[in-house]
Amino acid sequence: MPKLAYLGPEGTFAQAALRIMVPDAEGHPCANVGAALDAVRQGEAEGAVVPLENSLEGAITQTLDEFAWGRPLLITGELLLPVEFFLLVRPGTELVQIKRVITHPAAHTQCRGFIERELPGAVVIHSSSTAAAAQEVSNPESPYDAAIAPAIAGGLYGLHQAAANIGDRPDTVTRFVHVAPAGTELPAPTGADRTSMVAFLKDDHAGALLEMLSEFAVRGVNLTRIESRPTGDGIGRYFFHFDCEGHIADARVGEAVAGLHRICGDLRFLGSYPRADQVPTQIKTGTADPDFSEAAGWLARMRAGRV
Amino acid sequence: MPKLAYLGPEGTFAQAALRIMVPDAEGHPCANVGAALDAVRQGEAEGAVVPLENSLEGAITQTLDEFAWGRPLLITGELLLPVEFFLLVRPGTELVQIKRVITHPAAHTQCRGFIERELPGAVVIHSSSTAAAAQEVSNPESPYDAAIAPAIAGGLYGLHQAAANIGDRPDTVTRFVHVAPAGTELPAPTGADRTSMVAFLKDDHAGALLEMLSEFAVRGVNLTRIESRPTGDGIGRYFFHFDCEGHIADARVGEAVAGLHRICGDLRFLGSYPRADQVPTQIKTGTADPDFSEAAGWLARMRAGRV
Amino acid sequence: MPKLAYLGPEGTFAQAALRIMVPDAEGHPCANVGAALDAVRQGEAEGAVVPLENSLEGAITQTLDEFAWGRPLLITGELLLPVEFFLLVRPGTELVQIKRVITHPAAHTQCRGFIERELPGAVVIHSSSTAAAAQEVSNPESPYDAAIAPAIAGGLYGLHQAAANIGDRPDTVTRFVHVAPAGTELPAPTGADRTSMVAFLKDDHAGALLEMLSEFAVRGVNLTRIESRPTGDGIGRYFFHFDCEGHIADARVGEAVAGLHRICGDLRFLGSYPRADQVPTQIKTGTADPDFSEAAGWLARMRAGRV
Amino acid sequence: MPKLAYLGPEGTFAQAALRIMVPDAEGHPCANVGAALDAVRQGEAEGAVVPLENSLEGAITQTLDEFAWGRPLLITGELLLPVEFFLLVRPGTELVQIKRVITHPAAHTQCRGFIERELPGAVVIHSSSTAAAAQEVSNPESPYDAAIAPAIAGGLYGLHQAAANIGDRPDTVTRFVHVAPAGTELPAPTGADRTSMVAFLKDDHAGALLEMLSEFAVRGVNLTRIESRPTGDGIGRYFFHFDCEGHIADARVGEAVAGLHRICGDLRFLGSYPRADQVPTQIKTGTADPDFSEAAGWLARMRAGRV
Repeated sequence: MPKLAYLGPEGTFAQAALRIMVPDAEGHPCANVGAALDAVRQGEAEGAVVPLENSLEGAITQTLDEFAWGRPLLITGELLLPVEFFLLVRPGTELVQIKRVITHPAAHTQCRGFIERELPGAVVIHSSSTAAAAQEVSNPESPYDAAIAPAIAGGLYGLHQAAANIGDRPDTVTRFVHVAPAGTELPAPTGADRTSMVAFLKDDHAGALLEMLSEFAVRGVNLTRIESRPTGDGIGRYFFHFDCEGHIADARVGEAVAGLHRICGDLRFLGSYPRADQVPTQIKTGTADPDFSEAAGWLARMRAGRV
Repeated sequence: MPKLAYLGPEGTFAQAALRIMVPDAEGHPCANVGAALDAVRQGEAEGAVVPLENSLEGAITQTLDEFAWGRPLLITGELLLPVEFFLLVRPGTELVQIKRVITHPAAHTQCRGFIERELPGAVVIHSSSTAAAAQEVSNPESPYDAAIAPAIAGGLYGLHQAAANIGDRPDTVTRFVHVAPAGTELPAPTGADRTSMVAFLKDDHAGALLEMLSEFAVRGVNLTRIESRPTGDGIGRYFFHFDCEGHIADARVGEAVAGLHRICGDLRFLGSYPRADQVPTQIKTGTADPDFSEAAGWLARMRAGRV
Repeated sequence: MPKLAYLGPEGTFAQAALRIMVPDAEGHPCANVGAALDAVRQGEAEGAVVPLENSLEGAITQTLDEFAWGRPLLITGELLLPVEFFLLVRPGTELVQIKRVITHPAAHTQCRGFIERELPGAVVIHSSSTAAAAQEVSNPESPYDAAIAPAIAGGLYGLHQAAANIGDRPDTVTRFVHVAPAGTELPAPTGADRTSMVAFLKDDHAGALLEMLSEFAVRGVNLTRIESRPTGDGIGRYFFHFDCEGHIADARVGEAVAGLHRICGDLRFLGSYPRADQVPTQIKTGTADPDFSEAAGWLARMRAGRV
Repeated sequence: MPKLAYLGPEGTFAQAALRIMVPDAEGHPCANVGAALDAVRQGEAEGAVVPLENSLEGAITQTLDEFAWGRPLLITGELLLPVEFFLLVRPGTELVQIKRVITHPAAHTQCRGFIERELPGAVVIHSSSTAAAAQEVSNPESPYDAAIAPAIAGGLYGLHQAAANIGDRPDTVTRFVHVAPAGTELPAPTGADRTSMVAFLKDDHAGALLEMLSEFAVRGVNLTRIESRPTGDGIGRYFFHFDCEGHIADARVGEAVAGLHRICGDLRFLGSYPRADQVPTQIKTGTADPDFSEAAGWLARMRAGRV
């Protein structure tokens, strides 16, 4: 039973993601993303499940920065977890009785419409996590009548669902990634893969970003995400997170990232792994693996003068 | 005396930025960036000063999203404010006496080295803002011995500086922008200007970002910042914040943003304003205003057949 | 009845082109392309019809160079003339009697298959033009039995067609253009237009051609022809002839050629005129005239701060 | 003593080029470029020297088309031959006595200024080659007083130089290439090399040329020549001759031409050989051979998960 670190405490969305990605894992809750990844780096856990981005809030910058600056790790999988909030109460509490609600500020923001509509007079107090809010409410002495938290927290703390899926944007998802130690074998290509990397510019000249994008475009590789992050060396100095379609084992992706490696000050490969949405990569004419191997054979003949 | 909204409470870096940008303004502290910008939108304030990005932490996503989704406003100026943290104490407190420190979590993170080195046994407790920490310490009954906060908070609450500029990265800066109501006249071009905008893709096809960057590159306009943000419609759907060199009144910038406007689903112009660092724009051959007006004259003659 | 210069003598393809393009014109045969264009420049003719390229032989370089270096003129129309060769004989001559054939070397090349197949023992002698060959054969004293020439020459010199359309590639066409004096009003846009120009590089740096093509691509303007020609200043120094889809009166074409004008050492506009094949221009999203005028209005509002 | 074919007859610039490129060769004059190249293809000659382009006249289209359509051959060297015309006379003829001049039409064109200035009343008659003109004049019975031809023809036919270097553009050069049979070993890279190729588009879509140029640009490979030629399938259908800096054995050039091979319908490699001007290739950062081999090693490690 593998031991996997995650952003704790128990009862969070991260734990829910972990259970889906590696159902038989032993969870190892950590105080923050850095601690979860350090657990993998130091061998205390075989892997970790951490959030990378949220469809409403955007990048989880702490995760991005850990991947960019911390000791290298490998992303080996991803999950798109629907962010479904529940109004959790002690058994017996009715909706109309709810006057005081506790939850994490982000959950509060995302459920504002429900609260205004269904709990018009209620006061909302903030907790450090949605799981902590559920734990608080599970205490019969608690001054709070309800917690807004994921379903997993309700199960954990014996709470009832007074209302389900109460987020204002019911389609909100968080993208989690499974992280393994450096040296782990990459997942095999599936034809519906994603590759993640971090690129530091050699010199921050105008047009450097355009050059980087051209390395992908000329090999027919589509980018699915680009995030700029500050290098810390002053406003206007950035590095970039890229996700592209395909697997580094694909010839076109390999040539593109090798090209990026040549022109960048530093390129960190973060991993190639199956896409959660399983959308197969559309391959542009002339950029499939057989095209590359045929071209390599042709090139060898030309270099030998066999025109 | 103009009334300007800012991210309160009194004693924050935002207030310090406000005092530098508009020394004679009457400050109007607001609970968050959205409230400060709403004050401008509703005419309660003539303008606002809000943070846009930090050289360590990156974009202030709340500000970016307000500019993208809220009622339009105009950025009319920017300031790069050094983020200098001070260890503030009640008069009479010595460094060696400090056992309990209070500050905002971000300040804690950025001063970790100083605390470990100079206050090895001290406990650090978190407050909602650095200014609130200073206010707390100013109370003679406070259980806290010191606050980490900007200098302005020390002056406001009668505290002494037990140590100055204690951040681990002394070159950290936050970029603040001055925001005015829609309809305000743009600042005149200075030759060292910046233009900010938000671009929503028409359709999220591969290569859309490359096309957008090409609109700038072909007119010789350099980008200084690019940030992707989620549209909220699911992972992989982004919109983009761009900053470029130059002023929308410059012919090359005008043509580039008009080009972007044509190919984007929506392009929001956020403003053109003098760069805080006063670095003059390097103009590529053939892209200065006289080149554009000469070319316009030439084009008119050609269209009339006067070759 | 307009007087139009053409590449003579009478009975050439150029005259055939002239009769189709301007049926009621008075033809003015000239010794070469330069003389025909000079006749227009000096007011001796209202216009000229000259060949620009051939689908087998390629560019007519003399015409390209005349447009690049001579006094400016305007192309106002084009024609794709099928190059149909006929075996012309004096009345009474049978195919089997033909032993000596006269024609222009280019016609000889293009009819080699027919000659080998149908006139296996015949000798072919070269003349200065196909029309001159026909004229020669029309002389009853001529030592030649047949001429290879266009149909028009047969009519002119009273010859019979012993065989029709004898070219090896029956789909060969020559593109002729109608040329008018500088100052002539351009033909109105039709939605299926072509624009011709000549571009001289400012400095012959690597990537200059890519920059020029990008000026077209970014405005969604397709190139239909590109020809490099030597500047005369040494091997490796070229200028370029471009044909693109659309009319200079179209906003996207106007902006593209104005952009090219800005970055080039010299840009010669040669004309905008209806395409002979009448294929309507496919307009890329965001690059139609209304898109440009809408964007111009938007830009004016933005520059006035009316966001 | 290798036997090399050239564009005859004896006494032409092609023979002069041959003598410089392969001083000890036995020359084999041929009637045209196709015949010279066929001699190599059929093993009648070890190689050939043929003209590729002229700094005034441009491409020698017959040579380009032979390389594109004929059985493959390899270019193994190039020469830039100054095109110096001489006024050649029988011994004893004085400049003032010259009334009738014979030469090839191209030479006539290029010496027009000299003739008008120095031989104002002279008549110029055209011959099939400059060498033929010299041979004609060498006949004491000739009605012609002088020939315009290269120096080599004067030596061959015992003529004197009445005037030297009489071309209007004294810097005119013709680029000749040395051609070897398919299967010949390529010349070793020198650091100042050129690579020639012919590219046929897969489908003639808008933007195909831009894509081809991008394959070079993204690997930092500069193009030195681009020529479009008709495919013969109708106006608007072209293929392209490219010359680029560098040798196909260079990693960046190899990857670029392999990339072109993948996206083109057909790519013909014509050869890599030392540049006649010996200008060393400027190598863009990140595109030298060690950069490519380092990147290949990095890629192999990443593919193995050794991040």
